[in-house]
Amino acid sequence: MSAANPKPAQPERQDTLAPGRWDADLARTGPGTPGGRFFRGFWMAVARSEDLLKGQAKPIRILSEDYALYRGESGRAQVIDYRCAHRGAQMHLGWVEEDSIRCIYHGWKYDCSGQCIEQPAEDAGFASKVRIGAYPTREYLGLIFAYFGEGHPPPFPPYPGERADTVVDVWNVEHVPCNYLQCYENSMDETHVAFVHRPGGSHSAISDLPEVGAEETDWGMLRTGKRANGKVRLSLHYAPNVTRVIVPPLAGMDGVGGWVEIIFNFTPTDDENHLWLITSVVNVKGKEAEAYLAKRAEFHKKVAQARPALELAVELMEGRGRFEEMQHPELVIVQDIAVQAGQGRIADRMHERLGRSDAAIILWRKILARELRALAEGRPVKKWTPAPAEVVPTLGF
Amino acid sequence: MSAANPKPAQPERQDTLAPGRWDADLARTGPGTPGGRFFRGFWMAVARSEDLLKGQAKPIRILSEDYALYRGESGRAQVIDYRCAHRGAQMHLGWVEEDSIRCIYHGWKYDCSGQCIEQPAEDAGFASKVRIGAYPTREYLGLIFAYFGEGHPPPFPPYPGERADTVVDVWNVEHVPCNYLQCYENSMDETHVAFVHRPGGSHSAISDLPEVGAEETDWGMLRTGKRANGKVRLSLHYAPNVTRVIVPPLAGMDGVGGWVEIIFNFTPTDDENHLWLITSVVNVKGKEAEAYLAKRAEFHKKVAQARPALELAVELMEGRGRFEEMQHPELVIVQDIAVQAGQGRIADRMHERLGRSDAAIILWRKILARELRALAEGRPVKKWTPAPAEVVPTLGF
Amino acid sequence: MSAANPKPAQPERQDTLAPGRWDADLARTGPGTPGGRFFRGFWMAVARSEDLLKGQAKPIRILSEDYALYRGESGRAQVIDYRCAHRGAQMHLGWVEEDSIRCIYHGWKYDCSGQCIEQPAEDAGFASKVRIGAYPTREYLGLIFAYFGEGHPPPFPPYPGERADTVVDVWNVEHVPCNYLQCYENSMDETHVAFVHRPGGSHSAISDLPEVGAEETDWGMLRTGKRANGKVRLSLHYAPNVTRVIVPPLAGMDGVGGWVEIIFNFTPTDDENHLWLITSVVNVKGKEAEAYLAKRAEFHKKVAQARPALELAVELMEGRGRFEEMQHPELVIVQDIAVQAGQGRIADRMHERLGRSDAAIILWRKILARELRALAEGRPVKKWTPAPAEVVPTLGF
Repeated sequence: MSAANPKPAQPERQDTLAPGRWDADLARTGPGTPGGRFFRGFWMAVARSEDLLKGQAKPIRILSEDYALYRGESGRAQVIDYRCAHRGAQMHLGWVEEDSIRCIYHGWKYDCSGQCIEQPAEDAGFASKVRIGAYPTREYLGLIFAYFGEGHPPPFPPYPGERADTVVDVWNVEHVPCNYLQCYENSMDETHVAFVHRPGGSHSAISDLPEVGAEETDWGMLRTGKRANGKVRLSLHYAPNVTRVIVPPLAGMDGVGGWVEIIFNFTPTDDENHLWLITSVVNVKGKEAEAYLAKRAEFHKKVAQARPALELAVELMEGRGRFEEMQHPELVIVQDIAVQAGQGRIADRMHERLGRSDAAIILWRKILARELRALAEGRPVKKWTPAPAEVVPTLGF
Repeated sequence: MSAANPKPAQPERQDTLAPGRWDADLARTGPGTPGGRFFRGFWMAVARSEDLLKGQAKPIRILSEDYALYRGESGRAQVIDYRCAHRGAQMHLGWVEEDSIRCIYHGWKYDCSGQCIEQPAEDAGFASKVRIGAYPTREYLGLIFAYFGEGHPPPFPPYPGERADTVVDVWNVEHVPCNYLQCYENSMDETHVAFVHRPGGSHSAISDLPEVGAEETDWGMLRTGKRANGKVRLSLHYAPNVTRVIVPPLAGMDGVGGWVEIIFNFTPTDDENHLWLITSVVNVKGKEAEAYLAKRAEFHKKVAQARPALELAVELMEGRGRFEEMQHPELVIVQDIAVQAGQGRIADRMHERLGRSDAAIILWRKILARELRALAEGRPVKKWTPAPAEVVPTLGF
Repeated sequence: MSAANPKPAQPERQDTLAPGRWDADLARTGPGTPGGRFFRGFWMAVARSEDLLKGQAKPIRILSEDYALYRGESGRAQVIDYRCAHRGAQMHLGWVEEDSIRCIYHGWKYDCSGQCIEQPAEDAGFASKVRIGAYPTREYLGLIFAYFGEGHPPPFPPYPGERADTVVDVWNVEHVPCNYLQCYENSMDETHVAFVHRPGGSHSAISDLPEVGAEETDWGMLRTGKRANGKVRLSLHYAPNVTRVIVPPLAGMDGVGGWVEIIFNFTPTDDENHLWLITSVVNVKGKEAEAYLAKRAEFHKKVAQARPALELAVELMEGRGRFEEMQHPELVIVQDIAVQAGQGRIADRMHERLGRSDAAIILWRKILARELRALAEGRPVKKWTPAPAEVVPTLGF
C-alpha cells in the first residue's frame, strides 16, 4: 500500500488572472461590484415574453437585485422597483390598471415611468413627490430585455439575429444553481460536447475534437473550431453574456428544421444562480415551419410530462443517480447543468489547469479582467459597438 | 425610449426614528437587546391551550430563545428551560410525571419550579444542587401565557377581554415568516383593508377610508378611525404586541355571531418569525352560541381540508400565484401574510414614505423608540398600568 | 404565583475541559484544526462496501472535505480528490475505466494513484504534469476505509474484530445530523439505555444501572459496567471514534444469533453531521447462520417499507411526535438519533453538570483534550498502538 497522496504540489499554472483576487471578482455582478457595473452597461434578457400575460405582474431577480415586471393592458412590458415607496409592499402583488400598477397595500398607483399618480388615503400633492425606479424595457426574439444602468441604454436590439422566413422558438427557461460565468465559459468550450454529451448520442456529429481559436472583436469574441478536414466553425460571443451558435437538433427534434441557430442568454439572478434564456432561430417557412412547430409541440409535451431537468441534474451532482443511465427528453440540458453547476456555486478558478483547448475561455477571462480592473480603478473602458448583422455563426462541417 | 430611472432621489422623509440606527433595533426582541428587555417585562402568549394535553410536552421558541412547555397531570401548564442541566437533552422528549418532568436521557426529574428532585444514576445530594429555569405560566382566553422577565411578573390577566355570556373562540395558530412588528403595525392600519382584502369581499363593509388618529395611553395606544359620517371606531393596542378590535365576520362565518371582538397576540418566535395567537370573543349565548359553534366547526373542517394558508401566501410572495385569483376559506389570512411577510423578513423602515394614514404607526414607533432608547441608556422607562376593562373597542358605524 | 426563575446561578461544575475554549474544539475535525489533524492519523470508515458496485463512483464528504470514491473494474475501491484538476468538474460524474477514472467534462483520465494519464484535447506531455490526490483505501468487515493523513497510514485493519465462523452483518448507513462526538460519547454511556430505550422494551435486559468505570489503554479506552451482582461488562473504545460492544438483539431479531458484537464507526461528515457505519459480528455458522440471515432479510424488508429513522427522529426533536408513542422496526435508532442530535448540532459542553455515571465520558474528554492541545502546541502526541485481539467486549451478566 502506498502512502497517502493528499495534496500534490501544483506545477506552475498558466497565469490568466493575476493578480489572483480577480478570480472571484470575475464572477460577481452584484450592485457596486466591477462586474455589476460592467453588466449594467448592457441590455439584459430577463424573462420569456410568453410567460407574462397582459395585466400580469411578477417578481424578478436580476444581477442580485429584486424588481417587479408587469405587462400593461396595452401589451407593454415594464420593469420597475420591487417595493412600493410607501411601506415596502411587493409591487407584483398589485393590480395592473392600463399601463400603470397599483400597490396592493394602500392603493398607491404608479405609471410606467415609476411616477406615483394616486394615493387614495393621503393628501393631494404627496403623490407628485413620490417616484420609484423604472427601467427601460423592450422585447426581442421572444424575450423581454431591460436596462439597469445609468443614462441612456445602448442601441436596441442588443444583438443581431432576427431574420425573415424563420421560426423563432423560445425554450423553457432554466434556473441554473451556479454562477453565470461557468455556463458562459462552457458555451465557449466545444471540447465538452464529446464527453458531457456522449451519453444520449444526440451530439455525436460534433464530437470530434476541434482546434479552438478565439479573437476579440468590437462587440465581443469570435470563436473558431477548426476540424481535421480543415473546415472552420464560427461561433459568436456577444459581450457580456450572450452566445450565438449553430447546433445539431436535440434528440426528438431531428428530421425537422435541421441544425439551428441558437442564442443563449446567461442572465445572472445573483452570484450563485442564473437563468438560461434561449431562443432558436430556425430556417423554415410554410409547410416546413408547420412541421417544425408540430414536432416542437410534441416535444414540449414530453418535456412537460418529464421530471424537471434541474431535479435530475441535482441527483447527479449529489451522487444519487448515474450519469450514463440518465434519461430525459432534454438530456443535454440535464447533462450541462449537472457538470457546470457541479463545478460549485462559484467555480474555483484559482486551482485550474488550463490547456490549449481552453483558448477561448482564457481570452474571454483576459478581456473580462481587463474591463473590470479598468472599472475598479476608474480608467477608461472599452466602447463596445453593435455587432454587425453579417458576422454570423457557421456550421463548419 | 427614455433613460433608466433606477434610483430616484428621495424627497425628504418624515423623521420618525432618528437617529436612524433605531430602525432595525425597533424590531428586535432577542435576549440582551433593548427590545428583548422591553418585551420580557410583559406576559407573552406562547401557545393555544387546547394544543397541549395533560402529560404532553412541546418545544417552543419565544423571543429568540428555546423553552419546553408541558402540562402536568393536574392540568397545570408550565414553561421551563429547553435543555436538561445534565447533558443538554431536550426536555420536551421526557416523561411528564405528576406536575414534574423527567429527562429522557438519564432520568433526571425536575419539579415545576425547575428544581431537580431525582437523578437515578447519581449520588444522593447532587440533585438538590441542580435547578433549571422555570417561568411563571398562566392561561387566559384559550391561550397559555408565560413571563420571561426578571422579578415578579405584572398582574394577570395581561389585558381585559373576558366577559360573561360569550363564546371564546381560539383560532388556528399561524406561524408567520416575518418580524412581529410588521403585523402589529398592520393591525394599526385600517386603510389596508380596502385594498388587501378587496379580493374575496368579506371586508367591504369597512373598506371606506377612515381618518386615522391615535393617542398614547397608560396601557398602550388608543386608535380612532373617523368615518365620513362622523362616526368613530375605537381600536385598542395593548403594549407591547396585542391588538383588540371589532371586525366583520369572515366569509363563511356570516349569519352567526355578528361582528366579533378579536384579540391578536403577535408573539415573536425570533426576529424573523412570529406567531399569531388570536382569540375571538363572540357575543352569543344559548341557542345562538350553539349555532355559532356549529358553523365554526364546519368552517374549521373546510380549513383543515384546504392547503395551509402560509403555503398560499408564500406562492403569492414568490410570484407563483395571482393575488386576485387566490381562493381559501381563510382568504384574509392568506392575504395578510402575503402582504406583510412580503415586506421582507424584517421590513426596511429607513426607506418608507409615511403619510397621514400612517398616524397610528408613526405614534407607536415613537413610543417604542422612546422606551427602547431609555432601556439602552439606563434611563427610567414608562410604568405601564393594567388596561381598564371599560375601555373597549367599538364598531363605529 | 412565584417570581420567574429564568437563569439559576450554576453551582460549581466539574472542570473537565479547562481552559474552556477546548470545549468547542473537542468536537471539530475539519482540515487544519487540532481535531482534524488527530483524526487524519487514523483509518476512517467512509462507506459500506455493498453500496459501491464495480464501475460505480460516488461523492463522499469526510472530515469536512469532499472526495470521490469509486470501484474499479477489478473490484478495487479507491478514494480520490473530488474535483478534476482541469476545470473542477466533479470526478464522480465520470467513467470508470479499468481501475482508472475519466472526467466527464473533457475526458481527462486518472489512474488510481491520482496520476493523470490521458487528456484527449491537449498536447502530449501535459498529462504527466497533472496529478490529483489519491488516498489509501482498504476494505474490512463490510466497510470501506480510507486514510487521509500525511505519510504512511497505520497498520490495517484498524482494529480487531474479524473471526472465523461468524456472520458479518453490516447495517444500513445512518446520516446523523449532529457532531460525531455526541454519539461517540453516548456509546460510552450505558446509563442512557434504561431511559432512552425504555419505550419499545428491547433493551430491558440491560436497563439496570451499572457502576461505570473507564481506563485509558494503548489503543483507546476500556470501559467497565459493574452490575449489582458484581459481574462486570467490558466495552472497548478504539481511538478516535470506534466502539465495540456486546448488545442485545433488536426487537424483531430475537431468537436468532443471540447477543451480538457490534462495532460502531462514528465518522464525521463535517462538524455538524456524521455517519453511523455499523457492523454486527454474529457468532453463528451453518444452519444457525442461515436462520439468522433469513430473519435479517425479513427485518431489512420491514425497515425498507418503514419511513426513514431520521425522519421520525426529526419529528421528535421538533415536537411533532411523542417519544413514547413512536413505532419503527429500528426504534432504538430513532430514539438514539432524536436524543443525541437533540443535544444540538454541536452540543454545548460548557453548561453541563456531569456526575459519576459520566466517568467514561469525562475520561475520554480528558484524553482527547490532552492530545488536541499537544497537537495545537506542537508537543509530542501519544503513539497509539494496534489493539490486541485478545481484549474483547463482554456481556457481563
